[in-house]
Amino acid sequence: MMSPEEKLKELGIELLEAPNPLGSYIPILSTGNLVFLSGILPLIQGRLTRQGKVGKEVSLDEAREDARVVTVNALSILKNHLGNLNKVKRCIKVTGYIASEPNFTEQPKVLNAASDFLFEIFGEKGRHVRSAIGVNVLPFNSPIEMEFIFEVS
Amino acid sequence: MMSPEEKLKELGIELLEAPNPLGSYIPILSTGNLVFLSGILPLIQGRLTRQGKVGKEVSLDEAREDARVVTVNALSILKNHLGNLNKVKRCIKVTGYIASEPNFTEQPKVLNAASDFLFEIFGEKGRHVRSAIGVNVLPFNSPIEMEFIFEVS
Amino acid sequence: MMSPEEKLKELGIELLEAPNPLGSYIPILSTGNLVFLSGILPLIQGRLTRQGKVGKEVSLDEAREDARVVTVNALSILKNHLGNLNKVKRCIKVTGYIASEPNFTEQPKVLNAASDFLFEIFGEKGRHVRSAIGVNVLPFNSPIEMEFIFEVS
Repeated sequence: MMSPEEKLKELGIELLEAPNPLGSYIPILSTGNLVFLSGILPLIQGRLTRQGKVGKEVSLDEAREDARVVTVNALSILKNHLGNLNKVKRCIKVTGYIASEPNFTEQPKVLNAASDFLFEIFGEKGRHVRSAIGVNVLPFNSPIEMEFIFEVS
Repeated sequence: MMSPEEKLKELGIELLEAPNPLGSYIPILSTGNLVFLSGILPLIQGRLTRQGKVGKEVSLDEAREDARVVTVNALSILKNHLGNLNKVKRCIKVTGYIASEPNFTEQPKVLNAASDFLFEIFGEKGRHVRSAIGVNVLPFNSPIEMEFIFEVS
Repeated sequence: MMSPEEKLKELGIELLEAPNPLGSYIPILSTGNLVFLSGILPLIQGRLTRQGKVGKEVSLDEAREDARVVTVNALSILKNHLGNLNKVKRCIKVTGYIASEPNFTEQPKVLNAASDFLFEIFGEKGRHVRSAIGVNVLPFNSPIEMEFIFEVS
């Protein structure tokens, strides 16, 4: 099986510089074998891909794209922290908050784009527990925010 | 003191097949002594007990019933994973998201139904930390979603 | 460098009795080196500082004040549990839920008041990962609720 970084290369995905935190916190830290990441927004070169609520200004497909952007950002932050994604023993948990119109109830479909991507990159090690939550508004009017816990060896 | 499974039997509660995840994630995993569960909905035989927001289509009492259904589902998933609920050393954390009308502010009363139930089944080992959060909408228009962390020996 | 408790004293902050849980759960527990706290509201002597949504009844500055009140409550609970805040090895994670008008998107500015305060008290040990989430309503119509994970030695 290919390593996570070979797999990313094959998919043509480059892990760019990890985005800076948008407040007085840090993006990632380790405690024991667990690595906690802060809530991550779909930023590309410091700018949100788009703004608004899913089910209104943002479509399901756009939100799925954003979930993938967030996950690539998470992997950039993780690689920057660990040096090499091979050190990931397991993806433990993904919590996804979706800024939702009150009648939008397909939050799991949005997050499947992130979950499937993690499985694609890490194989069985990418399988995780997950919560999908709809909320009325997120920082900077972002359509999505996701946090991650990984286990390292 | 009775074991958790004897206590469930005494209450006439049968742990049925654990509900399948409603997306590309897994329901439960262990890391070290901690066991993380995915966000769980009040499903009975694969169907939501009801839909809607608490304080509008769903009453406080119905939401409390749903919190208990979610907790029974969590115990089914946990027993399926561990083999025996006696392996539970402690319930660590419950996070409860309640789909709420903006003027419904009794989220803690909803979750007390789950917390009291965990205490009933596990005794002191069932006492946990908890967060109660109101949100505008949840997957499939579920009135409630809860996630759990347990410690095993 | 001053100890966390010396620093609090210098700032004229007294850690009062830890607030009681507002439901059938416990405020704090330890598992391994991690200490989990329940969701905490901005209570002073058992009463909310104020009620309402940020961006409507509650201003940004008031919400920042509340974030600090919550953090002082967290430290009271933590000191009560540990005996001495010197046992804190690190603040791991802060999750902040802000009851928000749908057009209020400055949740990170609210939580910066808590993050900066933790850095002030604990120095580098106070730096943490964080998620900032907007929600439509919180228990008792509180404008803010925050949960914390600390690491102890």
